[in-house]
Amino acid sequence: MLKDNTPVIHEGILSGYAESDLVIFGIPFDGTVSFKPGTRFGPQAVRQELDGLETYSPYLDRDLADYKLCDLGDISLPLGNTGKVMDLIECEAQSCVADGKKTLAVGGEHLVSYPLIKAYLEKYPDLHIVHLDAHADLRDDYLGEKLSHATVMRRVFDDLGTGKIWQFGIRSGTKEEFAFAAENTVMQKFDLGCIDEVIGVIGDQPVYLSIDLDVLDPSIFSGTGTPEPGGVTFKELMVALQQMTGLNIVGGDMVELSPHYDQSGVSTAVACKVLREMVLIMVG
Amino acid sequence: MLKDNTPVIHEGILSGYAESDLVIFGIPFDGTVSFKPGTRFGPQAVRQELDGLETYSPYLDRDLADYKLCDLGDISLPLGNTGKVMDLIECEAQSCVADGKKTLAVGGEHLVSYPLIKAYLEKYPDLHIVHLDAHADLRDDYLGEKLSHATVMRRVFDDLGTGKIWQFGIRSGTKEEFAFAAENTVMQKFDLGCIDEVIGVIGDQPVYLSIDLDVLDPSIFSGTGTPEPGGVTFKELMVALQQMTGLNIVGGDMVELSPHYDQSGVSTAVACKVLREMVLIMVG
Amino acid sequence: MLKDNTPVIHEGILSGYAESDLVIFGIPFDGTVSFKPGTRFGPQAVRQELDGLETYSPYLDRDLADYKLCDLGDISLPLGNTGKVMDLIECEAQSCVADGKKTLAVGGEHLVSYPLIKAYLEKYPDLHIVHLDAHADLRDDYLGEKLSHATVMRRVFDDLGTGKIWQFGIRSGTKEEFAFAAENTVMQKFDLGCIDEVIGVIGDQPVYLSIDLDVLDPSIFSGTGTPEPGGVTFKELMVALQQMTGLNIVGGDMVELSPHYDQSGVSTAVACKVLREMVLIMVG
Amino acid sequence: MLKDNTPVIHEGILSGYAESDLVIFGIPFDGTVSFKPGTRFGPQAVRQELDGLETYSPYLDRDLADYKLCDLGDISLPLGNTGKVMDLIECEAQSCVADGKKTLAVGGEHLVSYPLIKAYLEKYPDLHIVHLDAHADLRDDYLGEKLSHATVMRRVFDDLGTGKIWQFGIRSGTKEEFAFAAENTVMQKFDLGCIDEVIGVIGDQPVYLSIDLDVLDPSIFSGTGTPEPGGVTFKELMVALQQMTGLNIVGGDMVELSPHYDQSGVSTAVACKVLREMVLIMVG
Amino acid sequence: MLKDNTPVIHEGILSGYAESDLVIFGIPFDGTVSFKPGTRFGPQAVRQELDGLETYSPYLDRDLADYKLCDLGDISLPLGNTGKVMDLIECEAQSCVADGKKTLAVGGEHLVSYPLIKAYLEKYPDLHIVHLDAHADLRDDYLGEKLSHATVMRRVFDDLGTGKIWQFGIRSGTKEEFAFAAENTVMQKFDLGCIDEVIGVIGDQPVYLSIDLDVLDPSIFSGTGTPEPGGVTFKELMVALQQMTGLNIVGGDMVELSPHYDQSGVSTAVACKVLREMVLIMVG
Amino acid sequence: MLKDNTPVIHEGILSGYAESDLVIFGIPFDGTVSFKPGTRFGPQAVRQELDGLETYSPYLDRDLADYKLCDLGDISLPLGNTGKVMDLIECEAQSCVADGKKTLAVGGEHLVSYPLIKAYLEKYPDLHIVHLDAHADLRDDYLGEKLSHATVMRRVFDDLGTGKIWQFGIRSGTKEEFAFAAENTVMQKFDLGCIDEVIGVIGDQPVYLSIDLDVLDPSIFSGTGTPEPGGVTFKELMVALQQMTGLNIVGGDMVELSPHYDQSGVSTAVACKVLREMVLIMVG
Repeated sequence: MLKDNTPVIHEGILSGYAESDLVIFGIPFDGTVSFKPGTRFGPQAVRQELDGLETYSPYLDRDLADYKLCDLGDISLPLGNTGKVMDLIECEAQSCVADGKKTLAVGGEHLVSYPLIKAYLEKYPDLHIVHLDAHADLRDDYLGEKLSHATVMRRVFDDLGTGKIWQFGIRSGTKEEFAFAAENTVMQKFDLGCIDEVIGVIGDQPVYLSIDLDVLDPSIFSGTGTPEPGGVTFKELMVALQQMTGLNIVGGDMVELSPHYDQSGVSTAVACKVLREMVLIMVG
Repeated sequence: MLKDNTPVIHEGILSGYAESDLVIFGIPFDGTVSFKPGTRFGPQAVRQELDGLETYSPYLDRDLADYKLCDLGDISLPLGNTGKVMDLIECEAQSCVADGKKTLAVGGEHLVSYPLIKAYLEKYPDLHIVHLDAHADLRDDYLGEKLSHATVMRRVFDDLGTGKIWQFGIRSGTKEEFAFAAENTVMQKFDLGCIDEVIGVIGDQPVYLSIDLDVLDPSIFSGTGTPEPGGVTFKELMVALQQMTGLNIVGGDMVELSPHYDQSGVSTAVACKVLREMVLIMVG
Repeated sequence: MLKDNTPVIHEGILSGYAESDLVIFGIPFDGTVSFKPGTRFGPQAVRQELDGLETYSPYLDRDLADYKLCDLGDISLPLGNTGKVMDLIECEAQSCVADGKKTLAVGGEHLVSYPLIKAYLEKYPDLHIVHLDAHADLRDDYLGEKLSHATVMRRVFDDLGTGKIWQFGIRSGTKEEFAFAAENTVMQKFDLGCIDEVIGVIGDQPVYLSIDLDVLDPSIFSGTGTPEPGGVTFKELMVALQQMTGLNIVGGDMVELSPHYDQSGVSTAVACKVLREMVLIMVG
Repeated sequence: MLKDNTPVIHEGILSGYAESDLVIFGIPFDGTVSFKPGTRFGPQAVRQELDGLETYSPYLDRDLADYKLCDLGDISLPLGNTGKVMDLIECEAQSCVADGKKTLAVGGEHLVSYPLIKAYLEKYPDLHIVHLDAHADLRDDYLGEKLSHATVMRRVFDDLGTGKIWQFGIRSGTKEEFAFAAENTVMQKFDLGCIDEVIGVIGDQPVYLSIDLDVLDPSIFSGTGTPEPGGVTFKELMVALQQMTGLNIVGGDMVELSPHYDQSGVSTAVACKVLREMVLIMVG
Repeated sequence: MLKDNTPVIHEGILSGYAESDLVIFGIPFDGTVSFKPGTRFGPQAVRQELDGLETYSPYLDRDLADYKLCDLGDISLPLGNTGKVMDLIECEAQSCVADGKKTLAVGGEHLVSYPLIKAYLEKYPDLHIVHLDAHADLRDDYLGEKLSHATVMRRVFDDLGTGKIWQFGIRSGTKEEFAFAAENTVMQKFDLGCIDEVIGVIGDQPVYLSIDLDVLDPSIFSGTGTPEPGGVTFKELMVALQQMTGLNIVGGDMVELSPHYDQSGVSTAVACKVLREMVLIMVG
Repeated sequence: MLKDNTPVIHEGILSGYAESDLVIFGIPFDGTVSFKPGTRFGPQAVRQELDGLETYSPYLDRDLADYKLCDLGDISLPLGNTGKVMDLIECEAQSCVADGKKTLAVGGEHLVSYPLIKAYLEKYPDLHIVHLDAHADLRDDYLGEKLSHATVMRRVFDDLGTGKIWQFGIRSGTKEEFAFAAENTVMQKFDLGCIDEVIGVIGDQPVYLSIDLDVLDPSIFSGTGTPEPGGVTFKELMVALQQMTGLNIVGGDMVELSPHYDQSGVSTAVACKVLREMVLIMVG
């Protein structure tokens, strides 16, 4: 008669680590956020809201219940030591990669992508990054810091080099960042328009998919620290994700949900649906 | 010098019951809501906000002031007795139908559509249902209950049979619900695209129009218990309603406004405009 | 490195059912709430917030970590069938009582006290009720219903008879309820003043302690459906609870936290501290 | 079966104007508010919330249902013409005074007291003012304006002269205002301490009672434009009002509820209870 | 080591008045607002949020840092004297116009456009008005007042005459306002569709650009007193502004941000970006 | 006619650094906050709200306008480098102390007290700490970190030794912290009761006054990350501060305002009044 007091795990994400093809974990880190902190609450909010989400996606005609999926919980992180946090995240991802798992990380702020990508790069030297975001994140430093949510793709560039980072939806940055992108990344400003062509170019090469949820318009996703109007609609994102079923996605992350800034709960509901679709295109 | 303390009735909804062609009433019921209650506050919120709404619709070039309309207030309901609530609603609707009135009910949760449709079905055995919603609402039971906001269209189906329910905008449900719809209803997933074709098929047959406001995208309508991103825009809904002027709508409802979940008040403003347009296509 | 994804249980409430002296469970029911629903979210909110609470009480100089305590999770309840809900709650409590456990229920609305008390009354025919509340809850019916949050102590009276119900902090009710109380219960209006004298009178007789958190002033506890200014302070409640260490409390409940109505989170923090103190006086 | 759609009037305030001893009306004016507007929403908020208030006061052992009371609705006011607003308020009050009614006005901002008091002063040249407030309101002008919420008691002083204004709870003002008060009014700083002595001094002389609700501590009344910590508790205000049953109160007002600034609704609930007690001491 | 405590001025708006081509000032006035006040907080909110805005516009490929821009602060206004407020605004604008500056005013409510336009009309008798808004603002009076946010374009029409006012995005008004517009203004209902054709017609004639931000859909701009669903998207507004680089804009305003009604902060972020684009098309 | 766009400085805090006896600065740091960040917004919120505060204190009969006071603005801090932050704060304080200024710092989180106190300790080896707080802050480490808001008074103890730290209002901590306090500090649990006796003991010795605003009850101060019910009232704090006029306070801080958690703005208003009183007892 009593509900079991086992953890609230979604009915579609019930497998153990060993048998799972894809593992999800949370990274409640927002240590370099310059303005409004709060993405540390993202993973917890997603787990609570997931309980009400249908396992079936009418967009992809796939169902979470048909796959082996595992939720590892959140990585436990120290307070205020960015370098150590980076190491812990990379170590966790390396362990999963070594075990042949695909990983999907839930942030947390965008800097967490850097150690995750580093872990994948060891195994996949030809890794490409598909990066959806409102911001270019290509500064060389931010307020003097090299490791920052505003520099994350520049750090990734340092490791991958020119032509490996595919950016979509970008609509905010300095003049210098846009100039840098023109030389060194492939950037689709404002929307996701050419994502299908890109998929043709990348082909079978391994892809890491990093979605900063602020790529969405703040009308549908206000729960983030730096909302930028002029973003993509949820439907446009769904279409892009459907197209990405053709990619060989080996790892991914979904970052920058700051749930307290949207008291209606819509932003968290959005994040949950994006998570479901990301899982289904990675394992399907 | 003092305002009369008569009820706050909209300047465009001032007629008495006897002379009115269409009557509006509220149904403040949310008794089967599984997650976030609050649609019980919907009718009250709509009445307060209506005061600021223009009577003239530039979409339809019609004006509420040109029609005989009556607001009957809210149905008084007992607490926690779903069966009795259903009876009271059906009885109220039967009385209006018997008097030759069109009715437009303001919910409350979606289950209230079931007794309303039953009342119309007695008079119009060939009744069709035009159903705008984010959710299929086609489960046979929900948490063991046959009468639920998640089963309402299945109960309606039990009475009407195959081919009478036309569903639009549906983007959430179980795999089984979508399979059931493929066999038994006419379902337009995600949007309102083909509504004009449908109108041609239905022709002059009597129609009951049920609008679950969560068919709208939560960017414009966050004030509801189960927001589903990927919905239709307000403009798309306005176009669909303009097209419906060709239908023979004999009754209708607008449900699932939960005003407290949108503190900006936008959701209630949206509901008021939808209500004005529904009235104007039903009486025009 | 990863947090285990076992349930978030407080570090002071870790024992299994069999070994525990006191068991806690949640009752997420608000089915008879006439005005503002939301106490269904109470147990969940308390569990989340408990994580940040110190196990040590400087008020009682006792520590949760020194006792055997178990959290059974929430009772799973059907939607909108009040009678069945009452049966399920009573059944659960009977089971615990039969096993010799003390129980502490977290509501939910106040009506849940009725089946809980019935379960205890079977075992303890001389049961006394210590009832802290802003409202008398002594109506014979409410809007025609016999089972309601506004009638719960009248129903308890029907089973216990005169002189067994000790009410404190009452500051709202009809003239009839206050008249009824003058004849049939022992009522301390407005405050908790004479609680120590009462303790002397009750002596060793078994006591069920029911705390409606709206006994607190809404300045410190605004997260409830019917806030009544003029309530007791948190310090006054702490003093009263310290005094109650002299009572033989065999069961209890803490009800009417509606967490969404207090966005600051203070009400939930208050509920957690009250819960800690209730546990410590029941097992200490 | 349908609720009548007559105005929502409290079950204890149901009489017509002619038969009533006391009439209530709202003044939704906040035109001179310098910082945070919103008291214009006060009367509407009070009426909505009144519906849930018990008619019986356990503080006074009196019941609204035992008196002839009338709610006249709100005065209709032009926008942005302070002088004309003053005239309309004074005119309305004069009319009621001429008819032998006691009036209780619900603000709106504090400036509305000035025309109300002027209307009473014509009939009662020996009128005393009992003024509860956090602010002295004794500036001669505010930002160059003579008519302002910050000057209202100075304007009243201009008409009444020294020794007629009794101020309680004052805890904010300029050095000059406190100096002016030392010469010209009777001021109890910080609390309501000596209110019973004052009552002895005033005796049977006619009293106008003006309660600026921000006299209450913002812990219990945050819904106001200029919250000042260090205020009186709700219980202290209840005691003071009980003591005032000995006064000959001929008119009164309750001002400065700005309901939108307290989303919990507690401030409005407080205002309703204060209104009930004010009515009961004026007619009892 | 300490930040200088000089005013928070945006890094792209740093020039002095004498050297600047364009000057910005705030007008914190909402004195004729009939329903929900709060646009008085608009200028302050914009200044705070501006600090986080990039100076570079990827829409226009222009950078604020490349122009001479000055922020004059807010005009200091008396409370509740609409006529005097109009005079002060006109006088301020005249002074800037006389000095050969373009001005961009940040409201405040829409009535502030009237004195601003009057100042420009003296210098530019052939002035055209490009007016983006949800509301026609063409009433001859509103609640008896000639000077109101709801009459502002009618007052402007009184001075300019037929054919000089170009209205876009209008979707709310009385039947009479739409009829008046059909005779006397050029009105594009619902959207900004034909703005490029209009630009061809106006050619080099001087233009005053007045943007009521409620022309935007409330999904992206809920922070306004009278939200009207069915508005234009942020992207549509960006496209229209890009097209307006072909116009000879001599002055402008951006009005009706009421920041407190959107607690997410998105509306203020939107206003800042619109301000940046307006500046860049006026000086570029 | 235009407001000068010089910084918003309170009319009572207008002097330059050189001539001032006391300097105020903000420390927007919340880097070690484990649960809810946000105290970084404290200094900014205080400055905005200060504008509406009277310069005159009726509690102390002193006026800010009668003293030489300077606001230095906020210390500029790097993100996520706690050690460097500590150095910058200490350096800033040393500079002021060397210039013979008293300093009053506005946090930010409580850890900022540690470097401030270190700066004073160099000059005043016999320094005493008067510490008002809800929490003991005496852990030796917190989640493995030695520098944390939860360890700050333990770090101070490491430098000062036994008997120099006087703690008031403490009501939360581990059993170990209370045991440590019994040996090494002077702790008044729950309230400020004996503060006048303490003043007698300390005499003329130099005192650093550190007020964690969560010493106040969350009923009046909910805007903080870890609200603890059972705190002191605002009046009790005012009385204690009046008593402290007898102390030789050489420096101080006011920390842990997290303004976003209290949307009513009351917490910020409280902080401003506490700041005014702290200034007036330090310079008076």
